[in-house]
Amino acid sequence: MKDKFFTYIQELQNTITAKLEELDGKATFKEDVWERKEGGGGKTRVIENGAVFEKGGVNISKVFGELPEALRKQFGVKEGNFFACGLSLVLHPVNPFVPTVHANWRYFEMYDDKANIVTQWFGGGQDLTPYYLFEQDAKHFHTVCKNACDKHHADFYPKFKKTCDSYFWNSHRNEARGIGGLFFDYLKQDDQFSIEQRYQFVTEIGNSFLESYVPIVKERKDITFQKEHKNWQEVRRGRYVEFNLVHDRGTLFGLKTNGRIESILMSLPPTVQWKYNHQPPEGSEEAKLVAVLENPKEWI
Amino acid sequence: MKDKFFTYIQELQNTITAKLEELDGKATFKEDVWERKEGGGGKTRVIENGAVFEKGGVNISKVFGELPEALRKQFGVKEGNFFACGLSLVLHPVNPFVPTVHANWRYFEMYDDKANIVTQWFGGGQDLTPYYLFEQDAKHFHTVCKNACDKHHADFYPKFKKTCDSYFWNSHRNEARGIGGLFFDYLKQDDQFSIEQRYQFVTEIGNSFLESYVPIVKERKDITFQKEHKNWQEVRRGRYVEFNLVHDRGTLFGLKTNGRIESILMSLPPTVQWKYNHQPPEGSEEAKLVAVLENPKEWI
Repeated sequence: MKDKFFTYIQELQNTITAKLEELDGKATFKEDVWERKEGGGGKTRVIENGAVFEKGGVNISKVFGELPEALRKQFGVKEGNFFACGLSLVLHPVNPFVPTVHANWRYFEMYDDKANIVTQWFGGGQDLTPYYLFEQDAKHFHTVCKNACDKHHADFYPKFKKTCDSYFWNSHRNEARGIGGLFFDYLKQDDQFSIEQRYQFVTEIGNSFLESYVPIVKERKDITFQKEHKNWQEVRRGRYVEFNLVHDRGTLFGLKTNGRIESILMSLPPTVQWKYNHQPPEGSEEAKLVAVLENPKEWI
Repeated sequence: MKDKFFTYIQELQNTITAKLEELDGKATFKEDVWERKEGGGGKTRVIENGAVFEKGGVNISKVFGELPEALRKQFGVKEGNFFACGLSLVLHPVNPFVPTVHANWRYFEMYDDKANIVTQWFGGGQDLTPYYLFEQDAKHFHTVCKNACDKHHADFYPKFKKTCDSYFWNSHRNEARGIGGLFFDYLKQDDQFSIEQRYQFVTEIGNSFLESYVPIVKERKDITFQKEHKNWQEVRRGRYVEFNLVHDRGTLFGLKTNGRIESILMSLPPTVQWKYNHQPPEGSEEAKLVAVLENPKEWI
């Protein structure tokens, strides 16, 4: 399974970066291949200063070896070996009318001292962070997520949509990071699903990514914008930074376990503003977005 | 003691903001008075878009009541009442040749169920974050810190300088946030010092702040700078954000205990950049700064 999924994310990285380069038309992804001293490594692909994407990364990594201390604590085990691989992406567009998107699909195995698999699971999801709300974009994104989920189980979309809303919650601001999507973790084999069925599900979601996001980018990327729209985007990007550095388990885990810093922090936006006590005017488009973030809603 | 120290920080806030406004010459501090539901409140003073200061805050607060859960855990007590007050300031200058400065001086009391003081202490310090290194500025700042310390005990400067270097350490970057200064905490009464002597020490440090920082601002604020210097300042401000959101105990404590968010996050810089894997050219002024941050040094 680990080889099969790693092959899958390698191909998906190629597919996604090729499509995004075509969409951007100006910038291309630069690739950095890195190694992890304790075992494994990754392939980081970053795009900067594009016509469409101001900054973005589509990264894969495969790490293995002895469980780092932080993971031993988290899983309540004394020792053991592990394998983890995944694809992570974040795209920060130039145009404030195009939403930021994040996605991640990953697989994890843990072994006993005879190298037998003790436990294995998939995790991941994708979520959208607009700066201006277009309801039809939110509906489109969630519909693609739901259609992919529905092929596997009718409960998946409502469950993983709800988990996404609660995970990407900027609790110190009392608002969501964005308008959500899917978030799932610890998808193990059980009475209902084999690990192969979990694989089929996660790759279905991965395969649906471009369809969920690209049409939105095409629709919005050429809207004329002013400095005030860009300012608002940069202020909201500040909330993105706050979430990633204060709350995001993946980011904090990476920072505290000697992950490759530049691959982890590629998720941070290229330009950001923090204004003191910034409040959008009542009735504005900006206020309309905030109202939706304060009360996550059903889009379908 | 609590009334005496609170009166002190009220006066110090007035002195510092008056001097900074005079220095800026363009912008003035806007004041927000806020109340804490559970007891106490604060007076936040923020300056934005000045001639010298792009953004800054000089805030005081006084909070009291039942110990919040996070503090009960931290101190290992089941229940109790507390009182805390302090002044916090952060100044982000326009000119990349002027360093950012942070300072904080605070006092804490905890009570038993008969309202007797069980324990009381002072904490605080001040530290400098330059974007370009002027050794004479670093020496000046540290000399003022040392002179203030030396009036109270010869051990104070070396000890609190070292604590500062280790506290403001951006461990995920393996570099210091800036070139340090002083950091001290839990200054209680003991065999050597009465609580009055602790008060005398902390107010000595507070009183030395303007002398430590203002001459540096005057010396550097009119240096001509280019877009590339501003870019570097904004990239380095990113590290400031990373420290405050990932590592700073005070910030995280505030965010997780329902502090007034806008007063806490006034410390974040006005404009920030994150570039992927940004490395200053070898031998540049930018690289010279980074080398010093990677290996904190003695300035005196």
